[in-house]
Amino acid sequence: MTANTGLEGVVIGQTNLSAINGEKGELIYVGYDIDDLARNTTFEEVAFLLWNLRLPNRTELEQITRELEAEQELNDYVLNIIKAFPRDADSMAALRTAVSALALTDPEANDNSDAANRRKAIRLTAKIPTMIAAFDRSRKGKNIVAPKKGLSTAANFLYMLNGEEADELRVRTLDAALVLHAEHGMNASTFAARVTAATLSDMYSAVVSAIGTLKGASHGGANMRVMETLNQIRESGQEPGEWVRQSLERKERIMGFGHRVYKATDPRATVLRELADKIMQGGEETSWLDLSDRVRETMSEEMEKKGKKIYPNVDFFSASVYTTLGIDMDLFTPIFAMSRITGWTAHLFEQYTNNRLIRPKADYQGPRGLTVEPIEKR
Amino acid sequence: MTANTGLEGVVIGQTNLSAINGEKGELIYVGYDIDDLARNTTFEEVAFLLWNLRLPNRTELEQITRELEAEQELNDYVLNIIKAFPRDADSMAALRTAVSALALTDPEANDNSDAANRRKAIRLTAKIPTMIAAFDRSRKGKNIVAPKKGLSTAANFLYMLNGEEADELRVRTLDAALVLHAEHGMNASTFAARVTAATLSDMYSAVVSAIGTLKGASHGGANMRVMETLNQIRESGQEPGEWVRQSLERKERIMGFGHRVYKATDPRATVLRELADKIMQGGEETSWLDLSDRVRETMSEEMEKKGKKIYPNVDFFSASVYTTLGIDMDLFTPIFAMSRITGWTAHLFEQYTNNRLIRPKADYQGPRGLTVEPIEKR
Repeated sequence: MTANTGLEGVVIGQTNLSAINGEKGELIYVGYDIDDLARNTTFEEVAFLLWNLRLPNRTELEQITRELEAEQELNDYVLNIIKAFPRDADSMAALRTAVSALALTDPEANDNSDAANRRKAIRLTAKIPTMIAAFDRSRKGKNIVAPKKGLSTAANFLYMLNGEEADELRVRTLDAALVLHAEHGMNASTFAARVTAATLSDMYSAVVSAIGTLKGASHGGANMRVMETLNQIRESGQEPGEWVRQSLERKERIMGFGHRVYKATDPRATVLRELADKIMQGGEETSWLDLSDRVRETMSEEMEKKGKKIYPNVDFFSASVYTTLGIDMDLFTPIFAMSRITGWTAHLFEQYTNNRLIRPKADYQGPRGLTVEPIEKR
Repeated sequence: MTANTGLEGVVIGQTNLSAINGEKGELIYVGYDIDDLARNTTFEEVAFLLWNLRLPNRTELEQITRELEAEQELNDYVLNIIKAFPRDADSMAALRTAVSALALTDPEANDNSDAANRRKAIRLTAKIPTMIAAFDRSRKGKNIVAPKKGLSTAANFLYMLNGEEADELRVRTLDAALVLHAEHGMNASTFAARVTAATLSDMYSAVVSAIGTLKGASHGGANMRVMETLNQIRESGQEPGEWVRQSLERKERIMGFGHRVYKATDPRATVLRELADKIMQGGEETSWLDLSDRVRETMSEEMEKKGKKIYPNVDFFSASVYTTLGIDMDLFTPIFAMSRITGWTAHLFEQYTNNRLIRPKADYQGPRGLTVEPIEKR
């Protein structure tokens, strides 16, 4: 039997949500190019798009905004879970636990009907930002800031995180980052969510699986690791290009470059790069911009020498964008989850509508025909 | 593109752990027939077998027993999480949350080395029974019973659940059930664990995914649903055979029969059936035995009329066994997890040793080439 350990090229099912053209570097959500969406829609519009397979009109956008607002607050049970987290808790393990605990107080948790799942999708999308902000403030010994009505998901998150409203450019930048991360085909976390749901388990279980899967360094965890690399370069005191060359000579992998699916430019990187430029130029310091420019240039030069092309991916730019927004490095992956929850739940609507247990095979290589010997004879 | 929504027949990788012959109704763990193991080994020996690919000798068995004993207690943080669960918490959502929370206090949680993962496998296998028993006693307003040294996993679980030691037949029966449920190839929960780990996420995240996946009615959740069916039959006051025939006429599915993989007898059912007979005959009442015999006979007769064969699966017998042991219906699936944790972690050792990101494709069926219109024009 030929094993396909990565399931590469295996088509697991149909979807109406997104299409990736890795060769051309294209990504569409429900027909719209990601670049168009990031420039011309908000995260709430994209959530509506993924859940309803069309963009909302004004009335529909107002309605979904109100529905999200109505679900932003956390109940005392979940707030107490968050307050009791150990101070040094891993941020993704904390989010995984908080979402898992939320299920225990949701009377609809085990209702797998489409109507209940749509309400739970709103609930999770609304509450995850509140959880992340509460976790961050609680571990820093700060008072937890309750969500504020009338703000977008991006604006409200920055408000709850910092205790004050952010300026328009910052909100716009985070909002675009949320649009860019919302959906990405049958990626590992989305797939994990579908495998969980396919046993007819509930949406919370599926989302908890997705969060745990996103946590990995080869998936959502990559954006934090990009920032660790950029920090290492800064702290080394070396010229960034030189640092990169030396790492490559040691055959080390530089985080933030290349992608399993994209062989050309990561289409999410372009808009994020522009926003990164804008926000870093508007900020007190442009050093992250210079540093990351030098890293990119050097990577490109070095790869060209070998006749290869390698491109920075979305994680490369999101890392410096979030840092410029003043966000702690270990919240980058939770912010990814706060956006991708829309794609996860949209995929779960599809899975529950047309379900089949997902159970591949393994090729057994071990012994056969053994008989249990009495323990004295072993 | 041809989609394989259930990944049927797709070989995801190699394993040394178990082989299933669905046509013949055979299951082996590392070369040993499941029937042989259930009759001649204990759960601790099987845990050692799955983790080390051979049965332990006396010294090794004593060592693993000591290692498990040393890890059975829960720390105050996890105990408090369990005590604070809502009284009506779903038992699998509770276990998922407790295991997720345990990670926050394990300094090795994010250490993906084989050595650390082996310690975590022991830790999880030792603590999950304590969690389940603590959950059950806490929700019933009873004092939580701490684990007792010198007892096997099965004996200790019954002790912590009931506050007193169980007799030998009961311990032996639960122990065999644990052996029978420990490992089963690339089933959905094991696969979910591997998908999570394959992003280089940690073992807790992978196990949390597995628990959430096992929860589903088409997987571990089935044993609870078998008992619900048996209860319904008893409460109906109807003759069991008549109840089954009427359900079949209404085209309803009878839980506990047939299996995605086994087209012949479920080899785990045979031993469990014998133990079920023994323990129910030894008990105060044999009515569950009579009832389930009638259900099986009728199913067999009715299927034969249609020229089909259908066999009771492992869930059919575990349901009445656990009921006779006095265990609440909604703990059946957690007990499944308490056994399968050994198989999950053994698969995770394999996954981390030879890892590749698991990312299939989806066949996009949605629109293309759309352009975002201003919201007023939608």
